[in-house]
Amino acid sequence: MIEFSYKMRVEFYDVDSMNVVWHGNYVKFLEAARCAFLRDLGYDYNDFARQNYALPIIKMEFKFIAPAFFGDELDIKVRLKEYLTTLKFEYEIRDKNKNLITKAATAQACVDMQTRTTMFELPSGFYKAIKDRYES
Amino acid sequence: MIEFSYKMRVEFYDVDSMNVVWHGNYVKFLEAARCAFLRDLGYDYNDFARQNYALPIIKMEFKFIAPAFFGDELDIKVRLKEYLTTLKFEYEIRDKNKNLITKAATAQACVDMQTRTTMFELPSGFYKAIKDRYES
Amino acid sequence: MIEFSYKMRVEFYDVDSMNVVWHGNYVKFLEAARCAFLRDLGYDYNDFARQNYALPIIKMEFKFIAPAFFGDELDIKVRLKEYLTTLKFEYEIRDKNKNLITKAATAQACVDMQTRTTMFELPSGFYKAIKDRYES
Amino acid sequence: MIEFSYKMRVEFYDVDSMNVVWHGNYVKFLEAARCAFLRDLGYDYNDFARQNYALPIIKMEFKFIAPAFFGDELDIKVRLKEYLTTLKFEYEIRDKNKNLITKAATAQACVDMQTRTTMFELPSGFYKAIKDRYES
Repeated sequence: MIEFSYKMRVEFYDVDSMNVVWHGNYVKFLEAARCAFLRDLGYDYNDFARQNYALPIIKMEFKFIAPAFFGDELDIKVRLKEYLTTLKFEYEIRDKNKNLITKAATAQACVDMQTRTTMFELPSGFYKAIKDRYES
Repeated sequence: MIEFSYKMRVEFYDVDSMNVVWHGNYVKFLEAARCAFLRDLGYDYNDFARQNYALPIIKMEFKFIAPAFFGDELDIKVRLKEYLTTLKFEYEIRDKNKNLITKAATAQACVDMQTRTTMFELPSGFYKAIKDRYES
Repeated sequence: MIEFSYKMRVEFYDVDSMNVVWHGNYVKFLEAARCAFLRDLGYDYNDFARQNYALPIIKMEFKFIAPAFFGDELDIKVRLKEYLTTLKFEYEIRDKNKNLITKAATAQACVDMQTRTTMFELPSGFYKAIKDRYES
Repeated sequence: MIEFSYKMRVEFYDVDSMNVVWHGNYVKFLEAARCAFLRDLGYDYNDFARQNYALPIIKMEFKFIAPAFFGDELDIKVRLKEYLTTLKFEYEIRDKNKNLITKAATAQACVDMQTRTTMFELPSGFYKAIKDRYES
């Protein structure tokens, strides 16, 4: 299984009037973690863009289990679940005491920006990057 | 079925570098629509707070079907699906041409802020408001 | 003086853990008000874009005088101060009781997106729109 | 002069449809940098809160000099300019090539949350922390 760990801190602007992270901000946290995974892989959104591909989110789901607070250091586990036709990730967010805060999943289509059509495979450079980084 | 319609406009700050609404911003759109429903009902977050209750989101899911663009006028249909132990809503977001943009669902627990415990019913004032507004 | 009034509501996601609007969100409020002014004028960001112009903010300043709260209805007065070489606006945000919440000012350059150079005048269509709407 | 350096990365959600950081997001960047300074100092927002003090922003100004892009690593220089009656900071944001992106300044009042009155000094623990960290 391809897994990646991303650490981040909860900022003041992430927190709502209940003194906990506002639920919508977890969407940002996942995106930062996912982009860090791709950057570490050596094939990020900019590489997709150079091939004229974009990766719009087509599905996302969240289960909020426990709150996170201002100043918390969170650890986001990113798991690549599928990358043949769509890009699917699962995520687990934990605080410093390993408490499970949030579970989530996203699916992304690979869209050719010139023809605005959905591709049924990812660019070959992406597969090569996966192979080089995780299968050698 | 209890249904409510909320209209809003896509702002410049809602749009990402692909020129479409960034997926995370739909979480805000749902919250604005949900709060407008509760305001129209006459029992909103402030009323819950006065009874010492908060309504944290415990689950949310989104299916993104078509993009929305800067300046678009969106219509969000909010459907109240359950309100006995948790508060569950379903949403459909359409653009001016009635194209379906996004489908989503949220679930909220009702939490007693003093004891930090989850209640298994909503405050009686909420049920009364539903009755007065939709069953008479 | 060219002046425009824009009304909006403070959402739950606008409010921070001090139970007041988080200061950074006023930047969004100004943008929504400014875009509503341009839409009303009949020459908005999309019209600038069709002429290959963008209007990046080059300067902004805010004075926060009183807090605004979840659910508040705010009125934003937008005043067009200059539109010869740059686009300058001043803003006053008041709550329902006419209390002054925030004063602000923004300046925008007009940039030719093809050459990435700053223009020293705005597109002629903009001047025409001002004339048609405010000087006739 | 008390100065602190904070490094951060521009995320996808920070960027607007012009492919540059949306101007309002710099308010978040400053807050993250300022909070990192206070955390490093050993006297952060949570310490103020324990003394029942909040630090609302009363003034902010920004000059946007050059754009920043998705994936950029930014360096924010935070300079503490005043801390007798109000807390004043100046900021300079530079990209990896040392290009100056943005200059900014903020002022914060120290407010007693119980009486909702503005104090004309900061809590003694803050002065002690400054002394311990920067004057010894």
